[in-house]
Amino acid sequence: MNAMINRQIIVDNLPAGMPDASNFRLEEGSVPTCGEGQFLTRCLYISVDPYMVGRMKPSAAAYTAGVKPGDVMQCYTVSEVVESKHPDYQVGELLYGSYNMQDYAVGDGSEVIVRVDSDVAPLEAWQALMGMAGQTAYWGLETIGQPQAGETVLVSAAVGSVGSLVGQIAKAKGARAVAITSSPEKCKQALDTFGYDAVVSYKDEAGRNLSPAELTEKLKEACPDGIDVYFDNTGGDISEAVWPHYNLRARIIICGRIAAAHLKAGEKDTGLRDQGFMIANRIRKEGFLVFDHWHKAAEAVPQLAKWVQEGKITYQTDVMDGIENAPLKRFCFSWNRFLVSLCLKV
Amino acid sequence: MNAMINRQIIVDNLPAGMPDASNFRLEEGSVPTCGEGQFLTRCLYISVDPYMVGRMKPSAAAYTAGVKPGDVMQCYTVSEVVESKHPDYQVGELLYGSYNMQDYAVGDGSEVIVRVDSDVAPLEAWQALMGMAGQTAYWGLETIGQPQAGETVLVSAAVGSVGSLVGQIAKAKGARAVAITSSPEKCKQALDTFGYDAVVSYKDEAGRNLSPAELTEKLKEACPDGIDVYFDNTGGDISEAVWPHYNLRARIIICGRIAAAHLKAGEKDTGLRDQGFMIANRIRKEGFLVFDHWHKAAEAVPQLAKWVQEGKITYQTDVMDGIENAPLKRFCFSWNRFLVSLCLKV
Repeated sequence: MNAMINRQIIVDNLPAGMPDASNFRLEEGSVPTCGEGQFLTRCLYISVDPYMVGRMKPSAAAYTAGVKPGDVMQCYTVSEVVESKHPDYQVGELLYGSYNMQDYAVGDGSEVIVRVDSDVAPLEAWQALMGMAGQTAYWGLETIGQPQAGETVLVSAAVGSVGSLVGQIAKAKGARAVAITSSPEKCKQALDTFGYDAVVSYKDEAGRNLSPAELTEKLKEACPDGIDVYFDNTGGDISEAVWPHYNLRARIIICGRIAAAHLKAGEKDTGLRDQGFMIANRIRKEGFLVFDHWHKAAEAVPQLAKWVQEGKITYQTDVMDGIENAPLKRFCFSWNRFLVSLCLKV
Repeated sequence: MNAMINRQIIVDNLPAGMPDASNFRLEEGSVPTCGEGQFLTRCLYISVDPYMVGRMKPSAAAYTAGVKPGDVMQCYTVSEVVESKHPDYQVGELLYGSYNMQDYAVGDGSEVIVRVDSDVAPLEAWQALMGMAGQTAYWGLETIGQPQAGETVLVSAAVGSVGSLVGQIAKAKGARAVAITSSPEKCKQALDTFGYDAVVSYKDEAGRNLSPAELTEKLKEACPDGIDVYFDNTGGDISEAVWPHYNLRARIIICGRIAAAHLKAGEKDTGLRDQGFMIANRIRKEGFLVFDHWHKAAEAVPQLAKWVQEGKITYQTDVMDGIENAPLKRFCFSWNRFLVSLCLKV
């Protein structure tokens, strides 16, 4: 890293469908200066997450302020304070916040999500476990799912960055955790690495997606006592297959909809309507975004750290070197990639 | 009424689709006797409500214990205690409870929903306003909708027994109430009788149902500030048309699905999936059944009575004479009929 140059990943153009390297360019500029009440940060780790696709969509449905061509690509970083004219932030301090895809950024504290303590967890863990994935799993269960001991918690995209933590947190809270995932490797990982009590693949042995009716049948075996909490990372046919198994007053965290990722502009996501199921069992469904919970991120840290220490939670990160790799070379906005936390060491 | 005979409406057979008179028969039997800790009630008013259709379905999705051929048809009544061997219930006392479609029934108190006070409201009002319709409107808003002053509350089936009360309660709580209904007469009733701030018809002038896109456009004019609470009595295309107008953290009470009533056995209720809307605006949807709230029915009575006294709530009942009319002659399990509270004076 050249300390005199500020490398930035610039949004060159917005993608029609999924973004790829052609939507970005690397620019080198000068290091910004900080004024009174500000501080300068140097980026150490960048994380690459599915929400970024949404931020690159011009559609009105995008749930955050999006990026436009010419902007530095948005992301959350682990950064170090290298200069400070702010009384609350000292040189050498580590922060997790929205400093975007660049070496240097000026802050005033409003962009800080949580102060990083490398004694509590290694730096890359502050992107995954203590960062977006862990906070999503933690607050999704804490505020909507509220699993009780003995209840069954079903998780889709169950070995992904969020899903793998949901399953483990559910277990730590005394619930039974059941995974929905795809390949035999992921099924094995669900049981062996993340400790799920049962796993269901939404694909058959030939790799074909099961119909909702077929998946419903398989879920019946995996969830003999029904489903009390469904952490829904996929939407689509998989969610539909789950409905018949809801217990009275089940809670559904609507967290993602990977199943709709293949839809082209103008294509509609259609399926069964669920009002009947919802009334019959008084189901509660709620859309979840971790951004609503950033202000209390620090509250989750001690509990997550404790679970790691007790061996109740294991987490995975996939660390690559070099900001220039972010979207330009190997950085792939592919769902496959997203399913583990991708973390770039800058 | 012959005091010596217990007339009962018996379920003769379960309907394939909507029930009609051919599914019932009138039987005359002897008056039951009450033992220690029991009391005998005589039925004064019966109410006829949409939930009864569900109770006559053999399907597993039915959300209450259903009826089977040979059973007395289930319903809620306003009944008078005519004999008592129970210390808490005195002769002459009036009760609202599940005494079913018959002149006489024995109770032990477990079937009482609320004690009726004819000084607070006339007897038929204990079926409508203080009974199922009013309790549904009250608790649906109280527990899920939670409208705040200045928010917009949208109601479908808006001049029905439940909907008309939802709109008025929302107004009494300081919210803006918007109606979805159908005919010009119902639109006029929404504005003039029930005081909605705006009304939208889901039919065009030729009586054709609008497409979701057309209805969405009309809702835009009626809800310029978006929608914070949707009291959904219909489901189907109407609900789909509402989604684009949800504000951040909107609450949806899933109370009914009249729109699915035309579906035949095996036909599926399909449409757009709403995960995207739910995540983007962190929508909360919850299935609602009033039965969950019967235990606190008495809590709602003073507030409902106060609103009537203050002129903030008006309610409608459609009273017919004679239990023999229940399902046998004019009693029609038709949706049209259900949209006002039908009350039978026995």
